[in-house]
Amino acid sequence: DILAAIADHFTHGSGPCPLEGRTVIVTSGPTREPIDPVRYISNASSGRQGTAIAEALASQGAIVKFVTGPAEFSKPRGCEIIPVETALEMEAAVTAALPADAAIFAAAVADWRIAQPADAKLKKDGSGTAPALDFIANPDILASVAHLPAGERPALVIGFAAETGNLETHARNKLARKGCDWLLANDVSPGSGVFGGADTRILFLDGTVTDDWG
Amino acid sequence: DILAAIADHFTHGSGPCPLEGRTVIVTSGPTREPIDPVRYISNASSGRQGTAIAEALASQGAIVKFVTGPAEFSKPRGCEIIPVETALEMEAAVTAALPADAAIFAAAVADWRIAQPADAKLKKDGSGTAPALDFIANPDILASVAHLPAGERPALVIGFAAETGNLETHARNKLARKGCDWLLANDVSPGSGVFGGADTRILFLDGTVTDDWG
Repeated sequence: DILAAIADHFTHGSGPCPLEGRTVIVTSGPTREPIDPVRYISNASSGRQGTAIAEALASQGAIVKFVTGPAEFSKPRGCEIIPVETALEMEAAVTAALPADAAIFAAAVADWRIAQPADAKLKKDGSGTAPALDFIANPDILASVAHLPAGERPALVIGFAAETGNLETHARNKLARKGCDWLLANDVSPGSGVFGGADTRILFLDGTVTDDWG
Repeated sequence: DILAAIADHFTHGSGPCPLEGRTVIVTSGPTREPIDPVRYISNASSGRQGTAIAEALASQGAIVKFVTGPAEFSKPRGCEIIPVETALEMEAAVTAALPADAAIFAAAVADWRIAQPADAKLKKDGSGTAPALDFIANPDILASVAHLPAGERPALVIGFAAETGNLETHARNKLARKGCDWLLANDVSPGSGVFGGADTRILFLDGTVTDDWG
């Protein structure tokens, strides 16, 4: 699994605490992008996967900085927990948490945010027409960290992909585009019950191989 | 408070179980309106207020049907719990729960939903432009129930308003527009910390009076 792969990457050994003293940033959960003071856009990420990874890393001696959006699972034991809401806050928290030996981007970051969130709650105006929402792209935190210059870049950068079809093709493209070392791809098709669920089908990709971790 | 007011409305008395045998529908929490299989629009309602009301009613002997969106607080003791996600599902659940002696609409129902949620996860297309979202108005569950014909309408219909300014004016207009008997108005201005918080400033309005319940 991912933990064994990470431990192997750093140590080529085992022992009781193979990740002792290594600093790892783990992002987890969804982000929330405000529309107005009460409404937001988010996604159904439960934080279960990021939390499980963070706890496993901590249990092997890693110093884990856990940057989490508002999620059902957001309190891994043995980790420094850094709560955030938006993608911009997550980017700032990750930047502040560097340098690190590894960075694992398990959060489901919103691709878009509302350009100008309203200061007051948007009201129905009686026209039957919804307020128009203008979106702008959020920063790509994974790609930014993966493309940091040597010396600043974590030695191991791991991305996740949540896809509803063509899992391997999308994941292979994402691995290349993001510049990360490994990509773990989850199938989140409606029938799969993965988002918020405990079971997951996952593909592991690095620059050369694809493994189905079932 | 609201519980004493409801008990008084029905019984003009006290005794240990003033609401014994009365059926009350309580809606609570936010709704989630899907954008695609993983993304949604929602709001920060914690369900704390609806849950507290439902538990208090149940403790006085009421048969409480608790229709709740996905919320932090969604499991009031002693109530029948009916979980829903969207406004359309909430409307159907409320309709199925009728008839009732009272209906209390504490949920923060989304005013709008996405007209055609995508079957597959929306992907960035490289253009830097967000996918366009077309909205349509959700049903107004409170107004629908409040305007049911006599015999089908609960004897007491209570609405809530969450406002970020001009609390009493907005609430007075909403009371008239919705046709409910009482309206409880919360100030959810960003500084108030109300959405998700434990304290709340609330105004009570019926057809004639306004009380500030602090």
